[in-house]
Amino acid sequence: MRRLALTDADAEARHRCVQWMLGAGLEVRVDRIGNVYATRPGRDRSLPCVLMGSHIDTVATGGAFDGTLGVLGGIEVMRTLNDAGIQTLRDIEVGFFTEEEGVRFGTDMLGSAVTAGRIPLEVARKLTDADGKTVKDELIRIGFDGDACERRPVPHAYIECHIEQGPILASAGVDIGIVEGVQSISWQRLTIHGEAAHAGTTPITSRHDAGLAAASVVVEARRMCDSGDFGQLRATVGNLGIGGGQTNVIPHLATMTIDLRNPADDQMTAAEQHLASYVGELAARHGVRVAWERMAKTAVVPFHPGIGDLLAATADDLGLPYVRIMSGAGHDAQEIAAICPTAMVFVAGEHGGISHTPREHSAPGACANGTDVLANAVLRLADQP
Amino acid sequence: MRRLALTDADAEARHRCVQWMLGAGLEVRVDRIGNVYATRPGRDRSLPCVLMGSHIDTVATGGAFDGTLGVLGGIEVMRTLNDAGIQTLRDIEVGFFTEEEGVRFGTDMLGSAVTAGRIPLEVARKLTDADGKTVKDELIRIGFDGDACERRPVPHAYIECHIEQGPILASAGVDIGIVEGVQSISWQRLTIHGEAAHAGTTPITSRHDAGLAAASVVVEARRMCDSGDFGQLRATVGNLGIGGGQTNVIPHLATMTIDLRNPADDQMTAAEQHLASYVGELAARHGVRVAWERMAKTAVVPFHPGIGDLLAATADDLGLPYVRIMSGAGHDAQEIAAICPTAMVFVAGEHGGISHTPREHSAPGACANGTDVLANAVLRLADQP
Repeated sequence: MRRLALTDADAEARHRCVQWMLGAGLEVRVDRIGNVYATRPGRDRSLPCVLMGSHIDTVATGGAFDGTLGVLGGIEVMRTLNDAGIQTLRDIEVGFFTEEEGVRFGTDMLGSAVTAGRIPLEVARKLTDADGKTVKDELIRIGFDGDACERRPVPHAYIECHIEQGPILASAGVDIGIVEGVQSISWQRLTIHGEAAHAGTTPITSRHDAGLAAASVVVEARRMCDSGDFGQLRATVGNLGIGGGQTNVIPHLATMTIDLRNPADDQMTAAEQHLASYVGELAARHGVRVAWERMAKTAVVPFHPGIGDLLAATADDLGLPYVRIMSGAGHDAQEIAAICPTAMVFVAGEHGGISHTPREHSAPGACANGTDVLANAVLRLADQP
Repeated sequence: MRRLALTDADAEARHRCVQWMLGAGLEVRVDRIGNVYATRPGRDRSLPCVLMGSHIDTVATGGAFDGTLGVLGGIEVMRTLNDAGIQTLRDIEVGFFTEEEGVRFGTDMLGSAVTAGRIPLEVARKLTDADGKTVKDELIRIGFDGDACERRPVPHAYIECHIEQGPILASAGVDIGIVEGVQSISWQRLTIHGEAAHAGTTPITSRHDAGLAAASVVVEARRMCDSGDFGQLRATVGNLGIGGGQTNVIPHLATMTIDLRNPADDQMTAAEQHLASYVGELAARHGVRVAWERMAKTAVVPFHPGIGDLLAATADDLGLPYVRIMSGAGHDAQEIAAICPTAMVFVAGEHGGISHTPREHSAPGACANGTDVLANAVLRLADQP
């Protein structure tokens, strides 16, 4: 799948979804950032609705399930309610948010962040892609520059069904994860300046080896995870390189990124502080200079415990085993959580939960079970007075 | 300096040296690999000569001293003997060897290796540069395809004066190093295959992180040096990179080189064995696959203790303090050592002994002192019956 936000491929998928929504008898509206909502009316339309949703854009080499499962699942919930002739107290809506992946315009969770008020509409519409095309012009071009207000009416609750994108559920032997929140994320870039020198003639104690310093940070970051001193910290160095690499020359330059995740903000802070202190001592010991750059930082987003418990009770009633987990990836739900009670249902993936690749796969039975939990939880919420 | 072997720049420098040699009244000959020798006749021309020499080619961004010091120093020794009217028992020769740096034709110490018989003449003459030009054709083109036999008459002794290219002499506060041999060198390339996965969703214990494995090798290599368990081991990782680096993706691939140096062959063997064993355990622990490639390996070349002692006695008599050291870099002397008693005189460098850059510098006084040791040692050897 290559369905970058607001491209022709995305437009085609949007039209397809809208057709299905209309086919299910839903009222469809598009807002000013291109988010699409479809409503199934309840008995009391003055009450806040129950919202389902996710996204249908993908990364450049994406899979079929990431985001799309929650949108198509939501449409299927609507059809199922229709088939069963069920009328609910509250409206139920299913929606999809613009540019969740952030691949084209550089800001992920864009549509949901505008909806939640974190990113102003006019800022979002002026964002440009690599060719200089704006969100606004592309919305107009593909016919999804709607007139509904982006700060939508506050829902009673929001539930997003999404693939896990990790191996935890499969390892636990369950299809379902009840997501308690999204981890804190910290991205930093380190540039380490040492001094080039001859590998053969320079004594070990006279070296200012930028590569060794970088490698020491990689190893320490893993040690921090293994130690348990920082809770459930995950650390990843996804970029690591040496300037002007020659076999017999001590590296004068190293660059690296450090991706930290933590389900607890205080332990994330402790991890960042420890790492900074470690790097400071390391720099002094090796006589290298380290420049830090903050790339990204988000705090933990806790989901609503009541919605989580309702999802758990629903799964229990359906006889579906589940585990409670924190999301390691970002989702639209973390934005919507700012405006209403929110939680997520995760569906197990195969191949270790590999995602953002065509190998991404969740078994039909797992997808059905996740959507079943979504449907029954939404039904309960939609009848809450 | 950019004076790659057998280029126009090298030809110009060769002609200049030959002029100086002829100007000093020496007999000049060129052999079939382009090595140039200039002879100052002794009283008994049937005795093996005493040979001085080094090289005048440079790396692409070279300095003024590397190699050239030993050649110009040798010519200056000849002039000084002339000025003093000294006649020696044996012939004295000064020479320069073709393509010591190995930058153009890919094999370092080429001319001296042919002279010592390690590389056959016809193999050497067929080597090509990046443009496909052969050593043979370039020797002919610049007029240095001589007819003297490359397996020259065995000298009584060979002494090479060269800059240290390291910080040890300057740290010790001396101008002179008496070189006891050349370290063993081991170059290996490691390619580590892991598995890409999401940085946020993949538990620490489920990872196959190729970058972490590479970083662990870097840190272990340094620990090995610091431990003292492998003598005076020096380890350098000059190349380190990650395939397809993305901040939030666990690296599936890492490549690195490991440059090991050791003044003792048995400790080099132990270091290589330990490293292989460490990497094997590491690969098992992280579930990564490691491919090794041997890039280069040379054994320790011990220089002649008698020549070393004679150099030391000469320095003592001149009142010049010195230290005894092993060479971390390769030199023509390590080839010539295979055919006759050989040693080297090192001259201290400034800026930490930085070399292979225009910043390479040795003070005039240090160069003079090194050449003085060379002259007086050669004089003693040339009068040995």
